[in-house]
Amino acid sequence: MLSKAQIKYIQSLQHKKYRQKSGQFIAEGDKIVPELLLEAVPVREVYATEAWISTHEQLLASRKEVRVTPVEEGILKQLSALTTPNQALALLDMPAPAEIKPELFKGKVTLALETIQDPGNLGTIIRIADWFGIRQIVCSPDCVDVYNPKTIQATMGSIARVRVLETEIAPFLDLAGLPSYAATLHGRNIVEFQKLEEGIILIGNESRGLSDEVITAATHKITIPRLGGAESLNAGVAAGIICGRLLI
Amino acid sequence: MLSKAQIKYIQSLQHKKYRQKSGQFIAEGDKIVPELLLEAVPVREVYATEAWISTHEQLLASRKEVRVTPVEEGILKQLSALTTPNQALALLDMPAPAEIKPELFKGKVTLALETIQDPGNLGTIIRIADWFGIRQIVCSPDCVDVYNPKTIQATMGSIARVRVLETEIAPFLDLAGLPSYAATLHGRNIVEFQKLEEGIILIGNESRGLSDEVITAATHKITIPRLGGAESLNAGVAAGIICGRLLI
Repeated sequence: MLSKAQIKYIQSLQHKKYRQKSGQFIAEGDKIVPELLLEAVPVREVYATEAWISTHEQLLASRKEVRVTPVEEGILKQLSALTTPNQALALLDMPAPAEIKPELFKGKVTLALETIQDPGNLGTIIRIADWFGIRQIVCSPDCVDVYNPKTIQATMGSIARVRVLETEIAPFLDLAGLPSYAATLHGRNIVEFQKLEEGIILIGNESRGLSDEVITAATHKITIPRLGGAESLNAGVAAGIICGRLLI
Repeated sequence: MLSKAQIKYIQSLQHKKYRQKSGQFIAEGDKIVPELLLEAVPVREVYATEAWISTHEQLLASRKEVRVTPVEEGILKQLSALTTPNQALALLDMPAPAEIKPELFKGKVTLALETIQDPGNLGTIIRIADWFGIRQIVCSPDCVDVYNPKTIQATMGSIARVRVLETEIAPFLDLAGLPSYAATLHGRNIVEFQKLEEGIILIGNESRGLSDEVITAATHKITIPRLGGAESLNAGVAAGIICGRLLI
């Protein structure tokens, strides 16, 4: 059973202000919660239906430190930030913010995002990073919050394997001192680039793209050639296409 | 001014049943409506705010056959199928269904979609097709309706340049008699394929992928290699990555 205060607390985590105050966030979903339990991420609590708990008995037994509370579907619906509530919801601690130093990026490929506004896009990009083996993403401070429930949902569990750091992008490029690839509409055709072993791929805002400051700071400007009539591509799709050309 | 009957009629077009009955559909959006007016598509009516109409005076004058009705924002909100209503809404005739014959596909690349369920995904894929110069998409009859307002919105105007046909996919592959490329999790690495000049790229359902019947009927099975931990990619992202490898 959940007390009224607990329900209120979990509901409050739908808002960035309360997530920041508490250092906790929620992840919802029949597929996401098991993925989080399989990874070494600090899951504190799981709230789920009796049926879900009995189906996942073994998995839950492997994470004895996680407190499991059976709740009715009606309560899960109250706790949910999504229009289609799920059978399970996890409460997690946010990881402590990492210090951004050049060693973190050496020998690796990093995605850096400037002013991504749509939580679904951010989640989709985290999932793409995870697919292509990118272990860290840098977000500008004005990106949508990574712990937004819709972002977490769209990562489909990849949030457990991809670390998200936050800092201003142009100074970050200077600090990292690595080759960087800015996605723009007037750069070099992506097919001309070799497979990338080290560097930073830059993706900008859904409608305005990257800022001039970041484009200037980047060592390369890259473009997905346009063969037809569409004016632009969705930011998540563009990130996927670029990773599909530069990382495999 | 709009009559109550007109408002009711436009609202009814949010539902597939009434779209099919009337042969008309709606497209909403400050960016989409101008794109449709620039293309040779049968726009019948535009409903927009006075401000929008005066900004687009020249464009509207170039399409004299389109009836333009100024409406207040409150009315547009009533007409809208979207949570964020726009300044302009267009009423269009659906194109007549084309007869599916092999000549339509010879010498071209076609995307074929099986059981895509999410309107946003279908719209995103139409936009990707348009970016890469694909002029036609074949949808299985159990795909989400292409004239769903959310699909139209997600195409960002590309619906004006990409023709969408509807038929069962496996028999279509037989009829077309072209090389076909089924996106699966256990096919040949997409990097091993040459640039495609003619053929059919097959994308399946968001959670189940393509049916065994379609995979068997396809001449090639292709896979985006997975380097990290994510279990799958979003269907739109996967379509983008495959087009980004096979078409440029």
